[in-house]
Amino acid sequence: MIKFKMVIAYDGTDFAGFQRQPGQRTVQGVLEETLTRITRRPVAVTGAGRTDAGVHALGQVTHFESDCPIPFNRWVRVVNDGLPRDLQAKKVEPAAPGFHARKDAYWKRYRYTLDTNRVPNLFCRRFRTPFPRRLELNPMRQAARYLVGTHDFTSLSAARAQVEHRVRTLYHCDVSEDEPGIFTIQVVGDGFLYHMVRILAGTLVEVGLGKRPPDDIPRILSAKDRSVAGKTLPPDGLVMMEVGYTPWQGM
Amino acid sequence: MIKFKMVIAYDGTDFAGFQRQPGQRTVQGVLEETLTRITRRPVAVTGAGRTDAGVHALGQVTHFESDCPIPFNRWVRVVNDGLPRDLQAKKVEPAAPGFHARKDAYWKRYRYTLDTNRVPNLFCRRFRTPFPRRLELNPMRQAARYLVGTHDFTSLSAARAQVEHRVRTLYHCDVSEDEPGIFTIQVVGDGFLYHMVRILAGTLVEVGLGKRPPDDIPRILSAKDRSVAGKTLPPDGLVMMEVGYTPWQGM
Repeated sequence: MIKFKMVIAYDGTDFAGFQRQPGQRTVQGVLEETLTRITRRPVAVTGAGRTDAGVHALGQVTHFESDCPIPFNRWVRVVNDGLPRDLQAKKVEPAAPGFHARKDAYWKRYRYTLDTNRVPNLFCRRFRTPFPRRLELNPMRQAARYLVGTHDFTSLSAARAQVEHRVRTLYHCDVSEDEPGIFTIQVVGDGFLYHMVRILAGTLVEVGLGKRPPDDIPRILSAKDRSVAGKTLPPDGLVMMEVGYTPWQGM
Repeated sequence: MIKFKMVIAYDGTDFAGFQRQPGQRTVQGVLEETLTRITRRPVAVTGAGRTDAGVHALGQVTHFESDCPIPFNRWVRVVNDGLPRDLQAKKVEPAAPGFHARKDAYWKRYRYTLDTNRVPNLFCRRFRTPFPRRLELNPMRQAARYLVGTHDFTSLSAARAQVEHRVRTLYHCDVSEDEPGIFTIQVVGDGFLYHMVRILAGTLVEVGLGKRPPDDIPRILSAKDRSVAGKTLPPDGLVMMEVGYTPWQGM
């Protein structure tokens, strides 16, 4: 058996999330069915992270094993010929036998994009959250800087998240307005709690609206209480961009 | 009754074209149903051009009449609240009583985009035609220059097009590679015959593949025979960008 590392992209709009669930169309489910059909052997796929329903990916990483004699440079095409249009293999390559897409990951990069224009860009509508309000960029950037570092992120994770250890490190957190009215939040961290990016984005948006000053952030973090942070934004604007397998070196 | 000019955008993927057809989901049909529901009076919508099934628009122009007392600056939001996610009003404004979206148009601008990368960009896949072959930009640009001007475009229109007069003027025709592997053909003309942009794109692509020299174009035009031109490319990559109501002034 050969271990493969496969980088994938998907439009999460029509998936019930990454994780396989009976009777639901999920990314893991479609990948496993497709690889099983192609290789004529049951294939299990493991992802670096379990994205929620409606969340997208341009650089999710997975691993699987196969002894199917497809030449290495043919895998991408063979897999893509079997996949639906909203799920794509970007790279398939042999990996070390012990490679594990989730356990070996050092960091993940996410992007959250808001379209604040009165009439949002139709062609990008699946990948941006419509938010027709005026946002101030500079306070959002100041607030983002307070989030970088090692913190207990209890306040920025869904209350139902059942993990004991809620300390995570954000290596990077910034906001930019790349086109007029299009606000993009980029975060890189060693791990993310349940709904953490969407709550973080919802909190920065309240700063951008002037509802909170940027220096509320340290208070929010130290409260360790979900109810003091902003709302959970919808999944539409969230994209898993990249997973790193060597220590973070900066953008 | 007030005459309105309405600029619209649509993702053509799930529409059976612009023109109303019984039992089909069309742009005109959805617009008329929506405006009729909003204003509680039957509304007829006329478009500047009838795009085919699968063809998109970012700047299609329409007109309609209504005496519904919605304040002018509220129309865009009211209409968009009633439209599905893949169809959008970008601008609604009162027009001169005699304004006619099709008859008053001086020019139209179209864009045709090909993604020649081995793994196409997933997020743009609905608006680009996948074409995983190597294209040479410069011969395509040379060929495009031969098309600018006033010509009989019989060779570049579908044989089934039943119009007597096939002379049209192209004010602009150029090809660019804006990102690596992404080829965009832009054309502006006073009118376009049936399938003309898709056949024009299919002919330029044959030049880009090296199957024809750029100076085949004058011969193709003078033949006045559809069979001497290239294939009709699929609708995915075609977008109606803009309609002009004053004489063409250049890009």
